[in-house]
Amino acid sequence: MTFTEIDKLAVSTIRVLSADQVSKANSGHPGAPLGLAPAAHVIWSQMKMNPKNPDWIARDRFVLSNGHSVALLYSMLHLTGFPLSIEDLKQFRQLGSKTPGHPEFELPGVEVTTGPLGQGISNAVGLAIAQKNFAATYNKPGFTLSDSFIYAICGDGCLQEGVSSEASSLAGHLQLGNLIVVYDDNKITIDGDTSISFDEDVAKRYEAYGWEVLYVENGNEDLEAIAKAIAQAKKSVNKPTLIKMTTTIGYGSLKAGSHSVHGSPLAADDLKQLKSKFGFNSEKSFQVPQEVYDHYQSTILKPGQEANAKWDVLFKEYQQKYPELGAELARRLKGELPEGWESKLPTYKPTDSAVATRKLSEIVFQNINEFIPEIIGGSADLTPSNLTRWKEAVDFQPDNTKLGSYSGRYIRYGIREHAMGAILNGISAFGANYIPYGGAFFNFLNYAAGAIRVSALSGHPVIWVATHDSIGVGEDGPTHQPIESLAHFRALPNIHVWRPADGNEVSAAYKAAFTSKHTPSIIALSRQNLPQLEGSSIDNAIKGGYILQDVENPDIILAATGSEVSLSVEASKLLASKGINARVVSLPDFFNFDKQSEDYKLSVLPDGIPILSIEALSTIGWGKYAHQHFGLDRFGASGKAPEVFKYFGFTPEGVATRAEKTVAFYKGKELISPVRRAF
Amino acid sequence: MTFTEIDKLAVSTIRVLSADQVSKANSGHPGAPLGLAPAAHVIWSQMKMNPKNPDWIARDRFVLSNGHSVALLYSMLHLTGFPLSIEDLKQFRQLGSKTPGHPEFELPGVEVTTGPLGQGISNAVGLAIAQKNFAATYNKPGFTLSDSFIYAICGDGCLQEGVSSEASSLAGHLQLGNLIVVYDDNKITIDGDTSISFDEDVAKRYEAYGWEVLYVENGNEDLEAIAKAIAQAKKSVNKPTLIKMTTTIGYGSLKAGSHSVHGSPLAADDLKQLKSKFGFNSEKSFQVPQEVYDHYQSTILKPGQEANAKWDVLFKEYQQKYPELGAELARRLKGELPEGWESKLPTYKPTDSAVATRKLSEIVFQNINEFIPEIIGGSADLTPSNLTRWKEAVDFQPDNTKLGSYSGRYIRYGIREHAMGAILNGISAFGANYIPYGGAFFNFLNYAAGAIRVSALSGHPVIWVATHDSIGVGEDGPTHQPIESLAHFRALPNIHVWRPADGNEVSAAYKAAFTSKHTPSIIALSRQNLPQLEGSSIDNAIKGGYILQDVENPDIILAATGSEVSLSVEASKLLASKGINARVVSLPDFFNFDKQSEDYKLSVLPDGIPILSIEALSTIGWGKYAHQHFGLDRFGASGKAPEVFKYFGFTPEGVATRAEKTVAFYKGKELISPVRRAF
Repeated sequence: MTFTEIDKLAVSTIRVLSADQVSKANSGHPGAPLGLAPAAHVIWSQMKMNPKNPDWIARDRFVLSNGHSVALLYSMLHLTGFPLSIEDLKQFRQLGSKTPGHPEFELPGVEVTTGPLGQGISNAVGLAIAQKNFAATYNKPGFTLSDSFIYAICGDGCLQEGVSSEASSLAGHLQLGNLIVVYDDNKITIDGDTSISFDEDVAKRYEAYGWEVLYVENGNEDLEAIAKAIAQAKKSVNKPTLIKMTTTIGYGSLKAGSHSVHGSPLAADDLKQLKSKFGFNSEKSFQVPQEVYDHYQSTILKPGQEANAKWDVLFKEYQQKYPELGAELARRLKGELPEGWESKLPTYKPTDSAVATRKLSEIVFQNINEFIPEIIGGSADLTPSNLTRWKEAVDFQPDNTKLGSYSGRYIRYGIREHAMGAILNGISAFGANYIPYGGAFFNFLNYAAGAIRVSALSGHPVIWVATHDSIGVGEDGPTHQPIESLAHFRALPNIHVWRPADGNEVSAAYKAAFTSKHTPSIIALSRQNLPQLEGSSIDNAIKGGYILQDVENPDIILAATGSEVSLSVEASKLLASKGINARVVSLPDFFNFDKQSEDYKLSVLPDGIPILSIEALSTIGWGKYAHQHFGLDRFGASGKAPEVFKYFGFTPEGVATRAEKTVAFYKGKELISPVRRAF
Repeated sequence: MTFTEIDKLAVSTIRVLSADQVSKANSGHPGAPLGLAPAAHVIWSQMKMNPKNPDWIARDRFVLSNGHSVALLYSMLHLTGFPLSIEDLKQFRQLGSKTPGHPEFELPGVEVTTGPLGQGISNAVGLAIAQKNFAATYNKPGFTLSDSFIYAICGDGCLQEGVSSEASSLAGHLQLGNLIVVYDDNKITIDGDTSISFDEDVAKRYEAYGWEVLYVENGNEDLEAIAKAIAQAKKSVNKPTLIKMTTTIGYGSLKAGSHSVHGSPLAADDLKQLKSKFGFNSEKSFQVPQEVYDHYQSTILKPGQEANAKWDVLFKEYQQKYPELGAELARRLKGELPEGWESKLPTYKPTDSAVATRKLSEIVFQNINEFIPEIIGGSADLTPSNLTRWKEAVDFQPDNTKLGSYSGRYIRYGIREHAMGAILNGISAFGANYIPYGGAFFNFLNYAAGAIRVSALSGHPVIWVATHDSIGVGEDGPTHQPIESLAHFRALPNIHVWRPADGNEVSAAYKAAFTSKHTPSIIALSRQNLPQLEGSSIDNAIKGGYILQDVENPDIILAATGSEVSLSVEASKLLASKGINARVVSLPDFFNFDKQSEDYKLSVLPDGIPILSIEALSTIGWGKYAHQHFGLDRFGASGKAPEVFKYFGFTPEGVATRAEKTVAFYKGKELISPVRRAF
């Protein structure tokens, strides 16, 4: 690439436009956009994308991992023709605008939500995995349906966060040559110079991960050097590339090179001199020279539209030459599942044998995964425990390792829960209906909480196979027994938190998860065997909550999830022998139950009857549905699982005793269903 | 060190004794103990420790980061004279035993709870920081009160986890030459060979962090090589050391070198042949040759007791020569705070100006930190936002960097929340009454959730300064606005989750935190200014919940925390103008409130009155105290903070409207206080 005056003008425009957004909002981060404008310009100038069709599957991806630099991204989206107006830029960080304080997935052109540091670069690893799998699955001689690159820009913060270390190590192992990360080495973080806490040799670390490392000495101005580095990175077939680029934070500002330019608007005078310095009218704001619009139109928008049109033709030909794969891909691009897939979901009768729900989950994968090719998953090194692998699975591995193939769909994430979470988000964000899942012990989802929150916020319908869901873990003890985990994730908006009680409920959980478009799922599964229940069905369970077993004129309702549902059924028999009628309610997914009509919810949990929740984890959260709670508001214990359950009173007798006390407690008192809301 | 037959016998004894524990329990992990017995023997043989006084402050520390190898640790504790009998080993992993499935802090000799991978090595960094600070503070010429080393053993799992990457990077920066980590390079994880997901160059990565890296080729047998590496590591003054030691998982077993020996007991035949191979009677279990006991008695127990006795004499002399420092240290070793410290806690009157609680927190640090020298803290690169630094603070930095001093008590953690959490635990575990704190945005405590859980489980009274506690964050938007965070941590057992409403409540939170012996604290603090409240006081707030403002015959109780308390006060005035009497209850810490008597709790939240909770985060968890909830069960929004509050209805009018609806809803209905429990 050769660069001329127009490129310089474009870079200056990006700088000034970004600073203007922050100043107009009187809030935000001007420092990084000023330093990174040249990198953004060079990267975007040679990316394959169609701003008029942001979802084009063959596009290159751009991830702004240091999401606080979002003004830079908004400038690029506006200048290159995405649907983002100058007016939108003026509304930067204002309530209800299209331009919130950090990039959000829902805005066309924003590939992933960033801001929580380390997530973006780790999402980029997921995008790169998806691209490799997509290409290995669908490319054919003469039909390169995908050869996209994944670009990311990140700062020191992203590289200090452990999640990026995990993801980068895996990216090196997986030889993701399609991944190009520009590291903004500006030597400044909020507390001051990076030398106060971060003087490791980042380049050497990335070489240790198996990355190619390149350097750009003057990222402030040297467009040629940036372009050269990117060109070289693209040639690195078997290694991801880190381009360590030295820039000056707040370049052009009077405060350039200081941490004070990181997170506050430029002073009015500073902004004026900045504009003058870059040849702009110091009194005007939001100025874009027409020739800059024209330049991006001719170098990005038009070539992108043409490439997209060519691709459309190519894909039509592909569908003729490869009708089966072509139809499959067309279906995936529409976001539809293969017809008839639901019939593959196993169902169970009460006479079927007792099975651990983690094993029932394995049966779902075994039945479904070969039928739905967009499912791609694995485990954070707990395959024999999470039971996440199906028999025909091929590992997703570089072909030259002989360990598998890029067309394989079983991912060995390694002992890296947080990166796994971010990678799931990246795979989902790639498109093509990818349905990624990851297995881990439920208790260790807290390692990935940062990424899970982004799943929910962005609406990536990823799946967590969270086995070993309670004190039923047994001997591994309290370090491995979840207590707060259900409450934690139930308190997160927009996420299914399933805790199925038997085979039908496991199938319901996966039915909901596979068909979810904008909501991730955690499926908490038992290590120990659980009986198949009378009264359960996929249709019942998918409502999130239902009457499993009823009686006339119940004296009490036992509301439970997972392993405590069958326990409640047993308790109800004991209670019956004492003349107490108990309804048993299974509530496998609060998220779906909350979406039901108030009438339905009241039919399950009506007024006038005491409701006792039974769940061998924290009782926090059950106030929504029950008057009294039997749970575990302390840490667990190491011992044989049945003994641990018994120790804490989770036996039919233990539940029955508490139910009796609950009935006695409310005798003669008026009771309002907790599902009733005053407003 | 030279090794003879008795050392070999000791190593074999460790191996067989560890395998026996797992087999007797029929549960656990024999593989790593079989491979690591030589390392454990060599490390322990030259550690300074007194098994009869496990808390001796000058001891060396040993951390088993791969906590699943716990049988190895129990063997060492038993053999070297800690209070752990053969009978205890036979009760391995049994309910109520002293020998749970993973190491737990409460057992004497266990320095930190491990099992969640990556925590132990990161705790070790905290221990090493504490040792450096302790030595720099108290050592004087001729009085080396502390020169201990921190040893850790870890496996591949620990080094894949991001938390260890973060902590190791910081350890390199801090030049922690007192830290020696043995990396068990056995090339096996649960999913199989490490080559399937982890083929980075670990040694090079650690060199990049600034560590010394040494090698032991034959960790299975070569005691001399291990000893030589440790001797060399001890000479590395300015760098922590990683000893990459190659071992065979399950060494001696028929399944040696396979992942199948990782997490299941050896087959009966295999155990027998193992015993024969190592010269033990294959029919007997839990055999310890007397000469092995004698050996450890003469090489560890007796020298340790003597060294401890000598140290006691030295410390007596020290107290005479340095009466002030000596008295301070003696006080700290007793776990007492300096007399009169409480008088330094600021108090406020309603006429004092409105101040952000993060700023009020800064005032506490400013008033207290120079008075309580065991307080040591910092921020994950958000010092200007978290306001965690006091004016006189000196950075904890290696003296040769000129950035501070090892006697400094302000830690620049870098952008490493998870490592910060694990380091807090390690500093606390060091002893000497260290009170460590760390600052971060509340929303990003989820990055550290794994470590925070261990704080609570182990009972480390560490402090999280969690600023930017709600949508009050404003423009940074939903990526930075906590929603689930309060519910998440309230559901965790044994942790204070404070959300103070004004200055007096901030002081109460710190009073509780600084005096806590076994419970960590999260203190969630506002970015925005909050008024000083009529009715608040340290004594009231420290109960966790109290009546802030009362009326006769309340029609409704408004129960709130943090910024929503003053909002509720404003709403109560609006309600009064409509003839509705509202009591306002502040509930800054559920943990302490739950510990109050039922009578007290009912005096605050009595029967018969509708209770409405007001908190601008998830409503999950409020069912414990309120009948109706006004919260935010969705993600926030980017905009000016007052506008965002208004958008979601968090205004006096918004609260009053919901209160009116609540009063109307319950009109004429019998109401039972949610704090009443049936059992």
